This record gives sequence, C-alpha cells and structure tokens, in this order.
Amino acid sequence: MPQFELEIREARESDAQNLIDFLNQVGKETTYLTMDEAGILLSVSEMQEVIRKMADAPNQLYLLALLDDEVAGVLSISADFHERIFHIGELFLVVAKRFSRNGLGTLLLEEALTWAKENGVIKRLELTVQVRNKRAVHLYQKMGFFIEAEQERGAYVEEEGFLPVYRMAQLID
Amino acid sequence: MPQFELEIREARESDAQNLIDFLNQVGKETTYLTMDEAGILLSVSEMQEVIRKMADAPNQLYLLALLDDEVAGVLSISADFHERIFHIGELFLVVAKRFSRNGLGTLLLEEALTWAKENGVIKRLELTVQVRNKRAVHLYQKMGFFIEAEQERGAYVEEEGFLPVYRMAQLID
Repeated sequence: MPQFELEIREARESDAQNLIDFLNQVGKETTYLTMDEAGILLSVSEMQEVIRKMADAPNQLYLLALLDDEVAGVLSISADFHERIFHIGELFLVVAKRFSRNGLGTLLLEEALTWAKENGVIKRLELTVQVRNKRAVHLYQKMGFFIEAEQERGAYVEEEGFLPVYRMAQLID
Repeated sequence: MPQFELEIREARESDAQNLIDFLNQVGKETTYLTMDEAGILLSVSEMQEVIRKMADAPNQLYLLALLDDEVAGVLSISADFHERIFHIGELFLVVAKRFSRNGLGTLLLEEALTWAKENGVIKRLELTVQVRNKRAVHLYQKMGFFIEAEQERGAYVEEEGFLPVYRMAQLID
C-alpha cells in the first residue's frame, strides 16, 4: 500500500467519534462479527470512557491501524479485573472491507502479541471466530492460536441460522 | 432439610443488599469462583440496576434459593443483547458453603433449565468450571452439560498457580 501512510498506535480519547463510525461501518459490512447492523451503540462520551479505562488497565489494549489518519482496522484485548482471570485477554480484531487483504490484520496481531509478551500480565489470549470465516481462522493459526473447541450454535445469522464458532487460544510466556 | 423453609424465586430489587452480602461471603469461602475475596464490588443501587435489567431482558435470569428468607444459593443466566449471540446464556451458580451438599444446586439448575426450555429465546447455555471442582463438574454433567474444551490457565489462584478450567455447554430445544 505505497499510496497510504500507515500508523499503528493505541487509541486516544480523541479517536472516539472515528472509532464509533468505523465500528458501525464494519458492523454493516459483514455477518462474521458479533456486532451487527445495530452497531456499537455507545455515545461519544461512553466510548471515551471505554478508551480511557482500557488505556489505564495493565491487562487491556485498544490498537488502531490508521491509513492516512483514517481508521482502517481495530484490535482490542479486553480483560476482567478479578485476580482469578486477570491474566486472560479476550482478543477482537476487525479490518474494514476495503482495506482487507492488505496484511493489516497480521500487522495488528504482531503488535498485540509483542505487547502481550512484554506486558508480563497477560498469560493467555483467547478469541472466538466463526468456522466459515476461513481467512480469519487461518490468520489466527498462523499467528500462534490453536483451536480449543468448536462451539455449536456459537452464532446466529438471520439468513443462515445457527453457525458454529471456534474458540481459539494462545498461551503467552 | 425439614428444618428450613425453601423458596426458589427470581431476584427482586429489594434483594440487592442481601445478594451483595451473600456474594461477598461466598467469594471468601472458596477459590473455585472467578469472584474473589474482593467480592462483587457493586453498590446497592448498582445491584438493583443489574437485577432490574436482568428481569427485563427476555434472555436473562437471576434466581435465588432462600432458606427461611436467607439467601443460600444463586443461579444467574446472563446474555448479550446483540442478535448474533442473543440465544447464548452464560450460567453462573453458587451455593453457600454451609448449605452445600443439600441438593440446592440441583434444584436451582432444574428451575433454570425449565425456564430456558419454556423461554424460547435461549438455545445454548454455557459455563466455565475449574477442573478440580469435581462435584460441580459432575453436577453439570448430570444436568445435561457436556465438556466442550479444557482451557489451560483458565484460572489463577495464588496458592495453586494457574489451573485448568472446563468450558461446558448444553443445547436447549
């Protein structure tokens, strides 16, 4: 992508509106995500609070891939505050359709895995992905995730009915 | 338990304080739960809001087992509002230590499964349970749950280190 300037960085509160617009857009583009046409349903101030809280938490991360300052992809790692599961990060990744197949997913994952390995808190990453989303499953496997379970009825899509979902995980040391 | 009067019913907003006290107590009694010594960390008004929202949601349930009006056990089914996973309920069950081994867990699960089958919305129930919590794993199997995955590092307990967790599920029709 020589025509775009790429930046990968953590989300800031000032990204809230752009992030909402991005998530609402990708929610319409695909039925692969849990997020649907209804979108993210957060106000700008609520999204600012999410970004602030995740930035402050040692076990959470909100990464943006920007192309010419436009949000093109997002990777988040969310985690609970309880000590019992403080070390478990739930990974979410999405790239806008028009920027897909350009390696942005790989770049975001590489950045997130580097963060997780250096961070010292996250010892397990997990995610869910629809079985039919073969490109994403392949990408996650390439990046070190393994399939822990195939979950029947893990997702519902109006035109398709119930769909199986893979639960994938990766241990971080 | 002929000496106690048993009631199983949905939680009401007026139960908020008793429920907080109960959850804080069981959080101290066991390291089997995600909830730890820190307890539930909700104010009474926040707990009232949780109870109200769960009562209003067609895919959520908050059940109490009361013995002589005292909270002895809790079963909750929480679920997301997104259509893609609206049919998936996450089950949580805990019985106070001094009332365990009296079948309260079975009674709460029977009530919850009846609710799920009649409710028409929930089509999949899932839960996590520490592998070493054999009595609970056995109970869930007896009530129709199967092991979907064993998750390495699914929990962390200070004295034990990382512990494996079973992810269990049951389809509801």
